[in-house]
Parts: sequence; C-alpha cells; structure tokens
Amino acid sequence: MKKGTIFSGMRPTGRLHIGHLSVLENWVRLQDDYNCVYGIVDWHALTTSFEDVQALQNNIREIALDWLSAGLDPEKSIIMVQSQVKAHAELHLLFSMMTPLSWLERCPTYKDQIQQFGQQGKEINMYGFLGYPLLQAADILLYRADHVPVGQDQLPHIEICREVARRFNHLYQTELFPEPKALLSQVALLPGIDKRKMSKSYGNDIALSASAKEVQEKVRLMVTDPQRIKKTDPGDPSVCVVHSYHQIYNVDEVEEHAEGCRSAGIGCVACKKRLAQKLEEVLGPIREKRHELMARPGLVDEILAEGSKKAEALAEETMAQVRSSMGVKGPLEG
Amino acid sequence: MKKGTIFSGMRPTGRLHIGHLSVLENWVRLQDDYNCVYGIVDWHALTTSFEDVQALQNNIREIALDWLSAGLDPEKSIIMVQSQVKAHAELHLLFSMMTPLSWLERCPTYKDQIQQFGQQGKEINMYGFLGYPLLQAADILLYRADHVPVGQDQLPHIEICREVARRFNHLYQTELFPEPKALLSQVALLPGIDKRKMSKSYGNDIALSASAKEVQEKVRLMVTDPQRIKKTDPGDPSVCVVHSYHQIYNVDEVEEHAEGCRSAGIGCVACKKRLAQKLEEVLGPIREKRHELMARPGLVDEILAEGSKKAEALAEETMAQVRSSMGVKGPLEG
Repeated sequence: MKKGTIFSGMRPTGRLHIGHLSVLENWVRLQDDYNCVYGIVDWHALTTSFEDVQALQNNIREIALDWLSAGLDPEKSIIMVQSQVKAHAELHLLFSMMTPLSWLERCPTYKDQIQQFGQQGKEINMYGFLGYPLLQAADILLYRADHVPVGQDQLPHIEICREVARRFNHLYQTELFPEPKALLSQVALLPGIDKRKMSKSYGNDIALSASAKEVQEKVRLMVTDPQRIKKTDPGDPSVCVVHSYHQIYNVDEVEEHAEGCRSAGIGCVACKKRLAQKLEEVLGPIREKRHELMARPGLVDEILAEGSKKAEALAEETMAQVRSSMGVKGPLEG
Repeated sequence: MKKGTIFSGMRPTGRLHIGHLSVLENWVRLQDDYNCVYGIVDWHALTTSFEDVQALQNNIREIALDWLSAGLDPEKSIIMVQSQVKAHAELHLLFSMMTPLSWLERCPTYKDQIQQFGQQGKEINMYGFLGYPLLQAADILLYRADHVPVGQDQLPHIEICREVARRFNHLYQTELFPEPKALLSQVALLPGIDKRKMSKSYGNDIALSASAKEVQEKVRLMVTDPQRIKKTDPGDPSVCVVHSYHQIYNVDEVEEHAEGCRSAGIGCVACKKRLAQKLEEVLGPIREKRHELMARPGLVDEILAEGSKKAEALAEETMAQVRSSMGVKGPLEG
C-alpha cells in the first residue's frame, strides 16, 4: 500500500552536479513509499532558453542518465518527458481559463526572477514565463499527485497549485483534484568550489558524472582559508569550502579534519585528498552505473518512451474527467 | 489552383442569428478559392464561459448545424472542433514561451473587454483571457493559413498573429509560418429588432434557424419611427429598424418602401409583411437544409469528427517542423 502519488520534475538545462544529489537521493527514497512520476520538463526549460535550443535533446538524455545513475528506477517510478504527454499543454490551457492573472502576477518568485534575468540582460518577460507556475500546476495535477517534494523556494508555486485545484473542484463541483502538499526535504546546500553558488555556468561545480580525475582536480582547486598560507599556519575551517564538503560527505571524520586544520596538524593537501576519496565513494558507483547505461545504446530513449507512455495513460484518465467536468468533449466518434 | 489557406473560427456560444449571415456567406464564397479550415473554437468559448459549461456540447452542435445549413460544405472545407486537435494547445504553449507579455497587455481589445465584462460583474481577468490572441495565433498558424477573414475589430489580433509568426521565423531561422493577412469582408451591420446591438442575450435577434412564424413575429415587433403613430402620418425610414433590413434583404424595393413611408403611402404593417417575405426567401432554404441535416442523426458529429481528423493531420505536419525548430523531440520511439 503506497502512501500516495508524487510528481516532481527538473528542467533539462545541462548535466546535474553534486549539489543536486541530495534531491535525487530523496527522490530515490520516495520510490518505495509513493507512486512516483518524475518528469523531465522540457517545455519548462523553454521559458528561459527558447532562444538557445540546440542542446535540448542532449540535455534530456544527460539528465535521464544522471537520474538513472543516481538510482531512479523505471521499474518503480514513471520517468517521463513532459513534451511527450500533450495533456500537460491541454490541462495548462484549460486551467488558464479559470486562473486569475493576479495569482500569477503576485507570485513572489515571478518578480524576483524578472529582476534577476533582467540584470543578465536576458529578455524574459514572456507570457509563458508569467504562466510558469500554472504549467507546473498542470504537471502535478495531471497525475493527481498529492505530494510534491520541493525546496523552500518552490512553496509559492505549490500554493498556486493548491489554489488551482480548489478552484477547479469548486467550479465544477467535483473532488477530482487533491490539494497537493509540499514534501520539504532537507537539501544539502553545497557551495561551488570557488565558494559562490554552485552552477554549471560558473564552472565551479562537480558534475555527477565527473571522472575520478576531474573530481580530484575540482577538489584540488577548492577555496580554503586564505589566511592559511603555509601548512604550519593554523586555519579556520568555517571559511573553507573543503570543510563544507567534509560535513556532508565525511561525517565521521569531519571533526578530526577541522581540528587538524585549526591546529595546523593536517595540511590542506592531505585534507583535500581525503575529501576526494570520500567523494569518489559516492560518485564512483554513480559513474559506473552511467557507463553501464551508456553501453546499451537506445536504452535511455526506450526508458523515457515507455515512461512517457505510462504517464500518458494516467494523464488520459484525468483528462477524461477534466473534459467531462468542463463540458468539453472527448475524442469524437466518426 | 487555390489562392491560399484560410483559417477562421467562431466560439460556440449559442445559435447564430441573421446578423452572422453575411460572415457565413463570405466563408461560403471563399470555399472555392481557398483551402479553408473553419474551426468551432470551444476552448476560446471557455475564456468567458468557464463558469457555465452545461450548454457547450449543444452549442457546438447548433453552430455546426448553422454553418452547414448556410452552405459550408465538408467536401470543400475542413470543418473542425478546436478541442479535438490537441496541437492547438501545444502550439499555444510553445508560442507562450517567446511572446512578450507586453504584446498581449497592449492589445486594444484586451482592456476594452476587461472593462466591458467588469461592468457586467463578470470575473474575467484570467490568465487565459489575456492570452486569447495568442491562442488565436496558434489556431491560425497551426494550419499555416495566409489569409484570415475577419471583421475590423479583430485586426489587432491579426497583427499579434503576424508578429508571432515573424518572431518564430526569426528566432529559429525558418520560413515555416506565413504572416497571415486579414481578409476584411463587408459585414452587414444589422440592428436587433429593438434597435440595440443584435444579441441572443437581449432577445432582440432573429435566429438563423427561426421558423417562418418566429420570423414574422420578430419582424412584427421591430421598432419603427416612433413619431409615426397612425398609417396616415408620414414616417422617417432613417430611424426605422425595418428599413435597415429592407436595405439589405430587399435591395430592389427599398426605395419604394422608404418613399411609401415618407409619403404615408405604405403602412408599417404592409412594410413589415413584405420584409418578412423577403427574409423568408433567405431563411427558408437555410431552415430546410437544417431539417435535412437533423433528419440524419449522428451526421453532424460525423462531419465534425472527420473534419477534425483532417485538421489534425495538417496540424501534425506543422508541429513536426515546429518541434524540430525548437529542439523539442517528436514522439519517442520505444
């Protein structure tokens, strides 16, 4: 007996990095307790990358490899591509007819992002960008998901999703849609190797699919306490990126290394070497799984096609009820 | 050799009236010279009637009967239902990603309508209401229509459609979409029988499907010159509803009747009786065609299903190119 249905998704904007791992680990855990639908939401990716779409197909394949390597299991979960299930677009359109503009305009993430992208000189204030949370609501409600694992920043979007569900149920006197609850997961906030926010675009990330050598190199470049010039200088772990990583990937030895830093007992080189070993313990099996998957050409496409087909069948069940509630006919006989 | 492709549509909001006839007559004429796709745009109807959807299915059938009775020919034109071709929703969503919000906000019809419906106490400022012209652009461009027969009031929407086509072509370096031209047709502006704007909701309309008796009754109730109390009083045709109808449906005799009014030579009763005869010459054959169609149960549904299937095939050709331009994959093999 499962505890409910989950939908969550990621935009295929490039290879995932180690900062995404805690999210994926959470998704992997949820697979046993919930009916999970995990979507590669490629239409969502277009909201910010409609001008640069060459990489989209490759990004979809890469993120699928990342997911599967990290433990998402197509036997347990539905792993699908949003654009393969047209009902996402249909439900989004139907919801658009009954969703007050003000709900979207007032969404706190909206103005933040407009400002943020504006500073980057990106033209972003598109109709679909305003409607982002509504497409997300359609993603979630299409599978009648009652739980959505998200980070704190996504809570306003879940709130809009709940309002849309309530409004639909009220307008059409139905209980079709649950009001999905956010499953807030503890997300490990890992800094980039240069201490800024980790981002592929800054080049300060460690890719989930990084080779052992790349991992070593990235760790070697991690920013440490700038006051600690020589090994014999005592250091301050609280300002050191390496320390942040030990806290998460080397819990047993984090104190030993911190103390060694403060007392100048352990040098940065040794401290980093140990971290690289610990990261390799995590990333090694993921990389191995990735290579297994890549050795079977067509496998990933097949998994996505099958997952999308399963998703479509679920989606059609919902849409049949949506259409009938709204007086729109299903496929005509003829 | 056809002159091009046409898309036009109507929202299924109830039986058509005689005020719509000149539009339909124009559509009928265009059938021979263009590849025509005529859509019953039921999703568009939801923008203003999402709260009241019970009648939608019946309205679709009624408008189809009106169209066919007035001479739209499923052998010549594609007669389809928007919600049956999901690609309308998909293309609308894809366009939404690249259409600046400001294009829609600045659309002159938008603020007008918000104000107009606001006065009626209708809650209307929905996300999808703002996006109305964009859904219309998707309707038109999905069939790569290069001509759109519209009234003057729709010109701003055609302009948005042209801008969307240009933007898509420019962003993806393609010539996929034509920039559709408005085919402005002369629309006979008929007043309602009470001289207000003709509208089913005012009860001042003459339905295309009205019986001969209903037509007579409506003509009998038409507002004439209020100064002309007795038959012997001279009247002023320029303020008389009956005269407006003679101008359109009794061109040969309009001057004779106007002169008879001014000279008190013809009474209102006789003038109306003659008009009713002339209207019957127009509406009789339409009514007869309607009865023939209604005598064959399932026929209309079949025509709509077949038309929608043809439309879908055309739409899929366009979508294959849209998806490939935007880097979104077609259906995955699996």
